[in-house]
Amino acid sequence: MEILFAGYDDVQVTRYHAGQIQPQQDHVVQEYPVALVYNGISHAVMMATPTDLKLFAQGFSLSEGIINQLKQLYAIDMIRHDDGIEIIMEISSQAMMALKSKRRVLTGRSGCGLCGIDSLQHLQQDLPKVSHHLQQRWLQDIPKTVQALSAQQTISAVTGGAHAAAWIENGQIMAVFEDVGRHNALDKLLGWLSVEQRDSACGFVLMTSRASYELIRKCAVFNIALLATISAPTSMAIDLAKSAGLSLASFCRGDNFVIYN
Amino acid sequence: MEILFAGYDDVQVTRYHAGQIQPQQDHVVQEYPVALVYNGISHAVMMATPTDLKLFAQGFSLSEGIINQLKQLYAIDMIRHDDGIEIIMEISSQAMMALKSKRRVLTGRSGCGLCGIDSLQHLQQDLPKVSHHLQQRWLQDIPKTVQALSAQQTISAVTGGAHAAAWIENGQIMAVFEDVGRHNALDKLLGWLSVEQRDSACGFVLMTSRASYELIRKCAVFNIALLATISAPTSMAIDLAKSAGLSLASFCRGDNFVIYN
Repeated sequence: MEILFAGYDDVQVTRYHAGQIQPQQDHVVQEYPVALVYNGISHAVMMATPTDLKLFAQGFSLSEGIINQLKQLYAIDMIRHDDGIEIIMEISSQAMMALKSKRRVLTGRSGCGLCGIDSLQHLQQDLPKVSHHLQQRWLQDIPKTVQALSAQQTISAVTGGAHAAAWIENGQIMAVFEDVGRHNALDKLLGWLSVEQRDSACGFVLMTSRASYELIRKCAVFNIALLATISAPTSMAIDLAKSAGLSLASFCRGDNFVIYN
Repeated sequence: MEILFAGYDDVQVTRYHAGQIQPQQDHVVQEYPVALVYNGISHAVMMATPTDLKLFAQGFSLSEGIINQLKQLYAIDMIRHDDGIEIIMEISSQAMMALKSKRRVLTGRSGCGLCGIDSLQHLQQDLPKVSHHLQQRWLQDIPKTVQALSAQQTISAVTGGAHAAAWIENGQIMAVFEDVGRHNALDKLLGWLSVEQRDSACGFVLMTSRASYELIRKCAVFNIALLATISAPTSMAIDLAKSAGLSLASFCRGDNFVIYN
């Protein structure tokens, strides 16, 4: 059961324009705590825009390696609370056992001052190698799809505050998802790719945000050969893209972009 | 002992410009795991740009309420590892006891599906009320300081990928700090405010990023009456600003901006 939200709230604001003051009605992007619960155990709480939450749950479960295939996710239910949303999932006992043992390892290390770095090292060690290949025509498709994307960013159009993740095939934008968090927008898109059984060899991901390491990792898990972003990459994103064998194009603006790997 | 980094790495890239390909040397913003350790216990690992790390440690410790005054922070040392940086801090036993009891409460709740939301509720309950007042002239200072800010964003100038946080007094930019994470940039600035013993009644914070709830909270802890951001706010940031009695100005571009509270 999907809970329906618009993705934005109405707010009363005061607009300043060249020294003049005007009260106005405006829209602002929704940001809710969304708890992801697997077989009764809370795994994470994400601050997310509550649209396409089922696809988000599916994409997150796959891109975080909690399940390997959609059929391991038996059921998804949602409960709306005053202060957030719970996504209650039922996964296969095999997937649940793997999740529990991973969590035990992380807990065991938490005495160490650099436990987070340990898990980052694991992140790099567990990083899948992308076997799909970059298609040269995708590079020609970047400028025109960047230009076409803004017309499909419906939440951003009214709020100016949401990231978008899009799937591009044959020079066409096949789907666009938005969220206040860039990794959430990508998880919604990855959920859509799985549900629609799209072949990840046939296209690439275009995002309006910066390229950060978690986006690289999520794309690598889905064997996606190219991530294109409108904003800058970070040094860790470039390192991780190199390790995964994923091509990264950033600063995609007008006719220009920069390839980092 | 401060560890010195430039804030950016050199990378070899391929630039596409109107269909033409050119290999180039480029710069990319540094993103490192930085572990914050209090009296031997690791508290958090942040992905941060490793510049002004001492101010970052001071600002983080204060804005997260781990210490209430700088004098409770007895010593700061840093160790560089292959994969990250440890900031080793010694805090007063009183502050350490408070930190330990807070952590116990959070651990105790972790069985609950909405533990993260519980801590968000606490976040709102523990939110300080801002007692300082907005000065009308600050609103006139926003457009000109926004315009002047970019000349002082040195990491962003070479990488295009860092957020900036600035302190404005009497229409002047008094300090600017940059980081790949917006909350880290703000913590560096708040560290500077404390070390310099600036009166937070006398100015406001200007940031290049979006306005998210953690920025509102950190500003409220410092009794700062106005946060101005160049990008959009989220719905939760607006709610939290209202609860704290903090004025929020966003979309500060050219002669325009929008006041949300």
